[in-house]
Amino acid sequence: MKKALIAALSIALFFSAKASAQQNLFISQDIESAIVAEDGSVTFNLIAPKARKVQIAGDFAGVKAEADHVAGLVGAGMIDMTQDKDGMWTYTTAPLPPELYSYTFIVDGVSVIDPNNPHAYRDFATLSNVFIVGGGRADLFKVNKVNHGTLHSCWYPSSMGYDRRMNVYTPYGYESSKQKYPVLYLLHGMGGDEDEWVRFGRTCQILDNLIAQGKAKPMIVVMTNGHTAMEAAPGESSLGYYKPHYFESGTMDGEFESIFMEIVNYVDKNYRTIAKKDSRAIAGLSMGGFHSAHISANNPDAFGYVGLFSAALGVTDPSISPIYQDMENKVVNQFAKGVKLYWTGIGNEDFLYNSNKEFRAMLDSHNLKYTYLETSGGHVWTNWRIYLSEFVPLLFK
Amino acid sequence: MKKALIAALSIALFFSAKASAQQNLFISQDIESAIVAEDGSVTFNLIAPKARKVQIAGDFAGVKAEADHVAGLVGAGMIDMTQDKDGMWTYTTAPLPPELYSYTFIVDGVSVIDPNNPHAYRDFATLSNVFIVGGGRADLFKVNKVNHGTLHSCWYPSSMGYDRRMNVYTPYGYESSKQKYPVLYLLHGMGGDEDEWVRFGRTCQILDNLIAQGKAKPMIVVMTNGHTAMEAAPGESSLGYYKPHYFESGTMDGEFESIFMEIVNYVDKNYRTIAKKDSRAIAGLSMGGFHSAHISANNPDAFGYVGLFSAALGVTDPSISPIYQDMENKVVNQFAKGVKLYWTGIGNEDFLYNSNKEFRAMLDSHNLKYTYLETSGGHVWTNWRIYLSEFVPLLFK
Repeated sequence: MKKALIAALSIALFFSAKASAQQNLFISQDIESAIVAEDGSVTFNLIAPKARKVQIAGDFAGVKAEADHVAGLVGAGMIDMTQDKDGMWTYTTAPLPPELYSYTFIVDGVSVIDPNNPHAYRDFATLSNVFIVGGGRADLFKVNKVNHGTLHSCWYPSSMGYDRRMNVYTPYGYESSKQKYPVLYLLHGMGGDEDEWVRFGRTCQILDNLIAQGKAKPMIVVMTNGHTAMEAAPGESSLGYYKPHYFESGTMDGEFESIFMEIVNYVDKNYRTIAKKDSRAIAGLSMGGFHSAHISANNPDAFGYVGLFSAALGVTDPSISPIYQDMENKVVNQFAKGVKLYWTGIGNEDFLYNSNKEFRAMLDSHNLKYTYLETSGGHVWTNWRIYLSEFVPLLFK
Repeated sequence: MKKALIAALSIALFFSAKASAQQNLFISQDIESAIVAEDGSVTFNLIAPKARKVQIAGDFAGVKAEADHVAGLVGAGMIDMTQDKDGMWTYTTAPLPPELYSYTFIVDGVSVIDPNNPHAYRDFATLSNVFIVGGGRADLFKVNKVNHGTLHSCWYPSSMGYDRRMNVYTPYGYESSKQKYPVLYLLHGMGGDEDEWVRFGRTCQILDNLIAQGKAKPMIVVMTNGHTAMEAAPGESSLGYYKPHYFESGTMDGEFESIFMEIVNYVDKNYRTIAKKDSRAIAGLSMGGFHSAHISANNPDAFGYVGLFSAALGVTDPSISPIYQDMENKVVNQFAKGVKLYWTGIGNEDFLYNSNKEFRAMLDSHNLKYTYLETSGGHVWTNWRIYLSEFVPLLFK
């Protein structure tokens, strides 16, 4: 190899690397955006000289998603960015409390991902950018220099007639030891799938950090897909890349709950689990809380720990499925058989607040002991990350 | 639970699900985009009544990424969309050949992700949307109803002083059997990281499909991060979410190659591998091809199979590292010790075409037997997916 070639190739390689990264023709602007300052203030930047109006829609903007967005009111609660003379739009927030935040830009009325923040997660049919303001509980959501577990994206054979995808977190040391571990089954909401708890839920980070701090026992976490008609999350199944729609198929019809134990059996067979009730927990958010309540009540010998996060309790038309029938007696029976922990949490602005209150009143009427955490806010990830990080340290003690 | 509550809650739950999905305030438009028709034509849609110009930048648009994008010529090779009277911008392509394509929209000069296609992958610092036109080789890139392997996103202890992240594909049956498997180490390019082959590379899908068709042996594929200064891909490390820049730290300085065998040792210890040369392959694209050539030549007893995909050959200043010194003799020695397959492929428009030609001439001058595939096109994913799907069936036979 000729030495003369080296310098030329190095330069070429530099440009090629740029070209390679940009072969997808997305031209990155040479600026940063969502810059988190030390005081927790965050600066957003966008070069858009031809735009007439640029706004930020973020969950730090004091917008109540439930109220505003059910009605689809784009523009409600948006923050206007200001344009400098070079066409750069900017906005800096006041110092924000520690949290994982999400946002998009609205450029002349069109919701777009910040082209200078390559980090965005899909939640149901849409992407939004993310950033973290560290400190306090939000440090649990970060990747820290601690021992890390493994995330397995894998498939199990389902009695639905096709394989179905799930995500399995195994704690640090799983690969190199012969140890057996307890298992938490962690279920998503109606708009979610098996990837939901991995992305906005920050499950791997929360578990890594709580385990490293000695606050949680090493455990396996199984994140399944609660829509039985789906093989996998959109884009991960044989349907290819598509935009999901609600209610394309039955989702709270008792089917998922009735065949759930096939997942437990698969996990017990293929992972080194402690395959008994007191080493098994089930929890979920919204529809996943509804699933958790019904699966655990219908399998009273299976789960020693139950977590209902903003659970969609009370949406129970018993005629839909035998799984939903006679729930009150099933729960009484479940407690009689022994529950180590029955945990429930909800935000005081959650639209499910009253149905949860009613469910707790039912538990109270039978003198059934549960743990209850009421937080501020509504039916949002902020609360679900709190609930997960409060629930996990209580497990398998 | 009162029956009267049920209907109300069902309705509330419906809206809540929408609110929940949209809590991130990204308002999805009620249209589809990147709709692939049966003839392979693709229709893009965007509601942007206030926009003055909307374009598509896609790798199906005949744009030469290397030529145009090194210079940052936004607008070169873009396709104009047309606006109807309701403000909806649309464009339908001619039937496209089977392939995984990527694109973004350019709205009044700003590159944005299609808000109606929730599927986008990050490549280096930018996101772009994806879709697949099926048929032919592109069917290998799809999730099909075949047995699926598992993707492990995991961490290994590095002599760099911190744990480093990698992705490990294990074939279908790995969890439920005691079988040992051969291993392919698959390395990324300069702008990439451990996630690159998983996303645009479609490694899990290509392996699942080739194995299901009986065209490839079940094997483990290890996808590492070739930038030793990085713990993990941007957003997956303790640096948090950030926008990556090139050349922040040494990347082709011999360090990765010199400590690579620690990864092999870790994998052999923690996965059920056949830990011998003829059951071990190494391949990579661009910088990863450069790494593969040097790692295999410096460890002539370690790898029976070598794959150089558009490899950055010839960028070897021997003074940088002993790893790069005396390469010609090392390669001669490597062949003398026995190589089952030395595979190299490049596109006829690749900027590395000539340095690859020179490398092959060096091999020829010593009568060293290699397999060579020349394709059309440049330094792009289209070629790297071809090379992977040609290379894998030749392994471990």
